[in-house]
Amino acid sequence: MTGDRYPSQLLKNAVDAISALPGVGKKSALRLALYLLKQPPEYVCHFTEAVGRLRSDVKYCRECMMISDNDVCSICSDKSRNRNTICVVENVMDVMSIENTGQYHGLYHVLGGIISPIDGIGPSDLTIGKLAERTEKLAREADDPSDIEVILALSGDVEGETTSFYIYRRISGFGVKVTSLARGLGFGDDLEYADEMTLGRSIANRQIFKP
Amino acid sequence: MTGDRYPSQLLKNAVDAISALPGVGKKSALRLALYLLKQPPEYVCHFTEAVGRLRSDVKYCRECMMISDNDVCSICSDKSRNRNTICVVENVMDVMSIENTGQYHGLYHVLGGIISPIDGIGPSDLTIGKLAERTEKLAREADDPSDIEVILALSGDVEGETTSFYIYRRISGFGVKVTSLARGLGFGDDLEYADEMTLGRSIANRQIFKP
Repeated sequence: MTGDRYPSQLLKNAVDAISALPGVGKKSALRLALYLLKQPPEYVCHFTEAVGRLRSDVKYCRECMMISDNDVCSICSDKSRNRNTICVVENVMDVMSIENTGQYHGLYHVLGGIISPIDGIGPSDLTIGKLAERTEKLAREADDPSDIEVILALSGDVEGETTSFYIYRRISGFGVKVTSLARGLGFGDDLEYADEMTLGRSIANRQIFKP
Repeated sequence: MTGDRYPSQLLKNAVDAISALPGVGKKSALRLALYLLKQPPEYVCHFTEAVGRLRSDVKYCRECMMISDNDVCSICSDKSRNRNTICVVENVMDVMSIENTGQYHGLYHVLGGIISPIDGIGPSDLTIGKLAERTEKLAREADDPSDIEVILALSGDVEGETTSFYIYRRISGFGVKVTSLARGLGFGDDLEYADEMTLGRSIANRQIFKP
């Protein structure tokens, strides 16, 4: 169905561009292209403008590096949030996920990725230097540096652990409290299906039962 | 994960535009938007330009109404093709599917849809008038109108059958041969799993066995 013969170079270019997106195959791309062709020109204009402006006009918060419409994002400029806690995450989606839990009321720091030698991403490609500056400033200005908490909310794989460890080494000297997300069985998880590492950590980090 | 709180209006606009595409949910749209954000600006420019130009610069062949870069498409202007056979299809994708079989060497006619009262699509919304003109002209210019064949290659559902019947009524008066696609068991299909309608038609339209 998706041989290399396209009736039009314009169509081929559009299909190539759409199918270059992650998780979109040639066949879906062709369907999307033909769908867009059937829409009014204003619809397609609106689409390309919304996508184009996202890339060209996007700003990042100068404090936490989160996507923002202003120089400082809505979270960093929210006076009601706890300014002594910084939650360090890999990307924008993680901030949105944590915000949606409604359980966190501090600030964030978006690394923009994770240390991954195999993908050629080192500490200098991330915003770790900026995090260290922020942490140092907070620690200096606080009555007691241990009032400042940095939560390492990175994924539990090797890259995540490596990045957490690297950040810990960079900031622990400031005397701040460094924590990481609790690991254990998921809510509603069945013991029978938990992997050994997860179950092992759940036992080692067991908590006082609070009925 | 996809609550309604976006950190940026630009991001929200892009996610809304992407998730308006058929088969793309909010979560995939957010992933695609964040993917585009990580690409170089030229990549996103190329993407929006390819999609935008498809809609703004697209041409349709004045003969068969197929997408084309020129006034007459590459199939209609190919002298080696059989000009006495017109295969009538619903859309551009159908032309590409049939071309990929390599079994057809005639011309096409793209209807641009199918008669569907429930969607408010009547005969006048399609290129049936144009097909009738083409057929009449071919029949008039041929030594014998029955040398001209119009193949109705529409889907086998109610809308497809209705459209086929409507077209048949419009063009049968010109004395041309009107055929439709063979219906029957698919290649490699198991008798046991065939539905009764398909199996029934396969028996009724049985063919001489050619070993």
